[in-house]
Amino acid sequence: MNLLDNVAIELPSWAFGNSGTRFKVFGTPGTPRTVEEKIADAATVHRFTGMAPTVALHIPWDRVDDYTALAAHAAEHGVSLGTVNSNTFQDDDYKFGSLTHVDKMVRQKAIDHHLACIEIMNQTGSQDLKIWLADGTNYPGQGDIRGRQDRLAESLATIYQHIGEGQRMVLEYKFFEPAMYMTDVPDWGTSYVQVSALGERAKVCLDTGHHAPGTNIEFIVAQLLRLGKLGSFDFNSRFYADDDLIVGAADPFQLFRIMFEVIRGGGLDAGSDLSLMLDQCHNVEAKIPGQIRSVLNVAEMTARAQLVDADALAVAQESGDVLGANEIFMDAFYTDVRPAMAQWRADRGLPEHPMRAFAESGYQDTVDAERVGGTQSSWGA
Amino acid sequence: MNLLDNVAIELPSWAFGNSGTRFKVFGTPGTPRTVEEKIADAATVHRFTGMAPTVALHIPWDRVDDYTALAAHAAEHGVSLGTVNSNTFQDDDYKFGSLTHVDKMVRQKAIDHHLACIEIMNQTGSQDLKIWLADGTNYPGQGDIRGRQDRLAESLATIYQHIGEGQRMVLEYKFFEPAMYMTDVPDWGTSYVQVSALGERAKVCLDTGHHAPGTNIEFIVAQLLRLGKLGSFDFNSRFYADDDLIVGAADPFQLFRIMFEVIRGGGLDAGSDLSLMLDQCHNVEAKIPGQIRSVLNVAEMTARAQLVDADALAVAQESGDVLGANEIFMDAFYTDVRPAMAQWRADRGLPEHPMRAFAESGYQDTVDAERVGGTQSSWGA
Amino acid sequence: MNLLDNVAIELPSWAFGNSGTRFKVFGTPGTPRTVEEKIADAATVHRFTGMAPTVALHIPWDRVDDYTALAAHAAEHGVSLGTVNSNTFQDDDYKFGSLTHVDKMVRQKAIDHHLACIEIMNQTGSQDLKIWLADGTNYPGQGDIRGRQDRLAESLATIYQHIGEGQRMVLEYKFFEPAMYMTDVPDWGTSYVQVSALGERAKVCLDTGHHAPGTNIEFIVAQLLRLGKLGSFDFNSRFYADDDLIVGAADPFQLFRIMFEVIRGGGLDAGSDLSLMLDQCHNVEAKIPGQIRSVLNVAEMTARAQLVDADALAVAQESGDVLGANEIFMDAFYTDVRPAMAQWRADRGLPEHPMRAFAESGYQDTVDAERVGGTQSSWGA
Amino acid sequence: MNLLDNVAIELPSWAFGNSGTRFKVFGTPGTPRTVEEKIADAATVHRFTGMAPTVALHIPWDRVDDYTALAAHAAEHGVSLGTVNSNTFQDDDYKFGSLTHVDKMVRQKAIDHHLACIEIMNQTGSQDLKIWLADGTNYPGQGDIRGRQDRLAESLATIYQHIGEGQRMVLEYKFFEPAMYMTDVPDWGTSYVQVSALGERAKVCLDTGHHAPGTNIEFIVAQLLRLGKLGSFDFNSRFYADDDLIVGAADPFQLFRIMFEVIRGGGLDAGSDLSLMLDQCHNVEAKIPGQIRSVLNVAEMTARAQLVDADALAVAQESGDVLGANEIFMDAFYTDVRPAMAQWRADRGLPEHPMRAFAESGYQDTVDAERVGGTQSSWGA
Repeated sequence: MNLLDNVAIELPSWAFGNSGTRFKVFGTPGTPRTVEEKIADAATVHRFTGMAPTVALHIPWDRVDDYTALAAHAAEHGVSLGTVNSNTFQDDDYKFGSLTHVDKMVRQKAIDHHLACIEIMNQTGSQDLKIWLADGTNYPGQGDIRGRQDRLAESLATIYQHIGEGQRMVLEYKFFEPAMYMTDVPDWGTSYVQVSALGERAKVCLDTGHHAPGTNIEFIVAQLLRLGKLGSFDFNSRFYADDDLIVGAADPFQLFRIMFEVIRGGGLDAGSDLSLMLDQCHNVEAKIPGQIRSVLNVAEMTARAQLVDADALAVAQESGDVLGANEIFMDAFYTDVRPAMAQWRADRGLPEHPMRAFAESGYQDTVDAERVGGTQSSWGA
Repeated sequence: MNLLDNVAIELPSWAFGNSGTRFKVFGTPGTPRTVEEKIADAATVHRFTGMAPTVALHIPWDRVDDYTALAAHAAEHGVSLGTVNSNTFQDDDYKFGSLTHVDKMVRQKAIDHHLACIEIMNQTGSQDLKIWLADGTNYPGQGDIRGRQDRLAESLATIYQHIGEGQRMVLEYKFFEPAMYMTDVPDWGTSYVQVSALGERAKVCLDTGHHAPGTNIEFIVAQLLRLGKLGSFDFNSRFYADDDLIVGAADPFQLFRIMFEVIRGGGLDAGSDLSLMLDQCHNVEAKIPGQIRSVLNVAEMTARAQLVDADALAVAQESGDVLGANEIFMDAFYTDVRPAMAQWRADRGLPEHPMRAFAESGYQDTVDAERVGGTQSSWGA
Repeated sequence: MNLLDNVAIELPSWAFGNSGTRFKVFGTPGTPRTVEEKIADAATVHRFTGMAPTVALHIPWDRVDDYTALAAHAAEHGVSLGTVNSNTFQDDDYKFGSLTHVDKMVRQKAIDHHLACIEIMNQTGSQDLKIWLADGTNYPGQGDIRGRQDRLAESLATIYQHIGEGQRMVLEYKFFEPAMYMTDVPDWGTSYVQVSALGERAKVCLDTGHHAPGTNIEFIVAQLLRLGKLGSFDFNSRFYADDDLIVGAADPFQLFRIMFEVIRGGGLDAGSDLSLMLDQCHNVEAKIPGQIRSVLNVAEMTARAQLVDADALAVAQESGDVLGANEIFMDAFYTDVRPAMAQWRADRGLPEHPMRAFAESGYQDTVDAERVGGTQSSWGA
Repeated sequence: MNLLDNVAIELPSWAFGNSGTRFKVFGTPGTPRTVEEKIADAATVHRFTGMAPTVALHIPWDRVDDYTALAAHAAEHGVSLGTVNSNTFQDDDYKFGSLTHVDKMVRQKAIDHHLACIEIMNQTGSQDLKIWLADGTNYPGQGDIRGRQDRLAESLATIYQHIGEGQRMVLEYKFFEPAMYMTDVPDWGTSYVQVSALGERAKVCLDTGHHAPGTNIEFIVAQLLRLGKLGSFDFNSRFYADDDLIVGAADPFQLFRIMFEVIRGGGLDAGSDLSLMLDQCHNVEAKIPGQIRSVLNVAEMTARAQLVDADALAVAQESGDVLGANEIFMDAFYTDVRPAMAQWRADRGLPEHPMRAFAESGYQDTVDAERVGGTQSSWGA
């Protein structure tokens, strides 16, 4: 059985809009102006890779009047709507926090926003409400760490009561940024204790760029799968901070190790509800092929990871053969799976070389020509 | 009420022996040859500071035939025996793990060692069994992350069954070293989930040097106190890795923030069972005054932390006055508490200036002269 | 002699405008709309501290038609114009580099921008042209590291030819951001070799937030002063990355150590041309008092640093008395200099408590009321 | 032309002895007791790989009475003696420094040790004197940063006067350890300014494990080659600190990028005097195959790096095609070169699969049986 058949990578609508750093956001021709255009681009990625069947929404950036129509639009393009991502960091009221704010009115506003997101999920048929909180403080003394944590627990509990039967809440953690001194959900431990207090349908979201330097991410993957609490991934890569580069670009071997633990922990098994999503910023590279490249990277490292000879590895591990075990592990990583991947795609009627096929498809030229006027999508809209 | 009256800092017996890096261990005149001499040195630190009433043991380094006699020896010197620290990293059998080892025989050996430690605790009247595990792997593929975690859980459960009513098990976590790729208890989250699976008397031990670069340690302190799971501290300081420098030496403001959260979370309240311990290496500085300096540093930052005007701080925090809140916080940190500390000591019949008083006491000259011959204590004995 | 009399801290005009993260820029009442209003705010900081006599400009954000008039405006407010900071990161042409770009036309455009900055310096009487380059790449393979470095050398040489007799070029280095994989001037070594190739009037600018985690910044300060190549500081503080927090807020002891090396290396001596500048972002705190607090922090740590008993320290260092040397060093840091600082200010007709005096002055209310309409200044303008 | 023909990897004699962490050094059967046995093991690595023709010595660990005889011994085994590594960190006199020590007598002792090393080089015909200094301080205030740097310059100048015509001095830098607060040669910048002050035959040694987290090492490689000052590598890999793991084990893509810049900068050109050396600790894995694996890793990443289509890359880079350039770069990295490597070895009469061939050779069993009694070599001898 090829585990690749179980790989479904969700694309973030915002990856198709403009993004950048605090210093500059560069625009590009063909950038979508509407959520419909973002979905069209995401569907294009799926068309060339066969592995990206859903699109995540970000509210309010992707707010529309009629979500049923939006779901239909997606279906027409061959994809469906996925995770709904909330946003409590761009309203002036959230300057000092949202779900953790000292002011009950602000907390309620943030809670209501999440309830509105759940309402959207009900209409789109989305499974996951993803909460990434920008809450935190910049200066020692600015906030009461303990009190903020308690208020967070209370706010999450209120939201969780509205999570439906087939729905889940996933709580993302992040080491730092935009808060510079203290982040209210800075590590997997905090996300774990918060979601564990809620119930079965609350899980942790692991963003691969949200850790301290040197953190062994695959350990966290293994641990959370062991605890039954790994809900989803936000894939990207980084050299320094939350760089949001193309997943696998900075350290493909790390991605290989992560996918190995995903497989080891049953994350690609038939019954698994683990969600694999991208969350990236294509600041200087083309967006659609940037997403295609990302899907291919996850797929390739998954393909390599499933080549690990598990039986031989177990024998080497149990006999204390450090070099032997490492060699078995590396043999899989060093194997070039690209021909096999091309074949896998050919077998499914997909282009063998998605990057090349996209470049030759003329899609980019078409949207460059069509998408003139209007306001290009970005994090602000 | 002065919270300093609630501060009791446990000293590690091994701080009085020689220590160093993998490159070199320097010896010094007067270094203890026996556990009795280590206790005598520790008692000296207490005599000059009034704040270090207990001494932690490390087994097998501090193994003796008669622990009742050892406790009596300590009592004669005015101190008592504290935490028992296990050691599963210096036996050849533990090359590939101890409580996590693939071999049941090795795991059982490690478990038995802990049961022997509990037996010592029964004789010495110690409250805490502290487990720091060196277990981990150096190379990707070398070990099965998930299986090791499961075996750890099983081993800990077996040991925990023997923890008596008035006793506790504290599980320390460490980012890396001696394992270089994967550490089996690398972060507070892992220690928390492991001890939570055991019961009330299992808690987390936080070593201030065991985190990734940039980690907000006071956040973890606040979180674990909130969860009722912070059992003890191993105090020291670091610039880079687990440097094991004198606590407060690298970043006194961080120590201040930690002690602020300890107070905020009730860690110095009358009923608190939070244990404050030092765990340091005096590689190049004199050991006894190194410990005195460490006790003074913890005391001074505690004194400064309790100066924070909590009411004014709450008002500033609630009104979003970032600079005002920070100023109230920093005002406490910037206040020179040394005169008040000297007075506190004078009031208790202690030397106003412990470092100076020790230097003038002639104690070091005495032990330098007496402790000739024999083998100086170090991590190996 | 009080070294505080030699402390002159340059304020960045942009600190008075809005700033933020890639997630959000919050606005505040009273934010300047023009460079003239920024200068008025900077002059206010000087009026309350007596230590901030100059204002740095950023081109094009502070572009005006008549720089002579601008200098006169500054003089009327009691300050003068300082360093001119160039900007080659917000024009679309610089997406793939400026002084390092593969395209000669783009490099020439960036060079011309610096020549225009020098022309402004000629009109304002500024001493320093500061170059901070955002140049770099996000992905391995994206650029030719070596070729970019060669082109940088060529571009800088061209600019340097236009640096006048009484002028200097200072080249800032930065670990990462906005480039995520490779930054063309990432460390002091690179800045040093580039400016050394130019001549006497080219020096290094050290931004305290632009280093890898754990970097010993005071070592670099000592080294560059030893080499005669430390031109200027960009002061701020950080917990994680280039957080641009208030200088001294994250680690006041580090600021103390930096100022100690500045003094040790002659940086505050009468003849020194070392320039001390702030470069911060007041994302969530009030801007004018944020700058006042920053000036006070530098001043306080300078005051503490000059309390170090240099003779006693040398004796302790030479005798290998680690704890004694450290105690002499820490005694200075632990001394509360605030009363002496208040007196120093009172002696000069300045408010003893600048933060309080500013709060009571009504200045903020006045500008809040006056500055209505128009576009608030930010990094974009 | 195959650049692999120009790859010669020097092996460190000490890699064949025992090593470990400060916590424990594990011994293994067959560990050499003498320098002659270490050389025999190193020659074995060369015999199976064809790429490790020289062995580096460490003085005093490898001190013998007759170096001419030692060179002859090496020649008999098919290898020759390479770099001489000095040691100024294991003598009690160096507790507070060696070449930087405040005491002129200690500095002279350290200088004399280096002159003795040069004398050994004269006898062995070695090209390089490698200086890695453990000098530094553990506590702020402990030493005078500036004064230590000046003394270092003076000591190095004295040693350099004795470096012969065909000889070189290479100065290694290290971020931290064993010094915890301040290291006297912490970064490439410091090594560069120190060796630049000496002359042509003084160069920088880059140890791949000696950098701050996140440092872009290939940038430094490119920069030092550009400056003509990269003398040699100490290869190993790390996840956290100076882990000294098998080169390429932690991040093979990083090793690929480093070798790409080596090639780009001419480091493997015919006339290049760049020296490639291993410096590793085989704490838990078998030593001889550990070294074989290391040689193979360097060779494989070199082979992949030379596959980069330089012309196509230049076109993509110059046209701003970020994804295209990255793809060309990654295509080389993702190519499985192991079959071609096996062929390269077969063509030269070497075993196609060195790891397997060594395992089947019986060499380990032989030395396990022969090397009984005596004292196993380690860092202490």
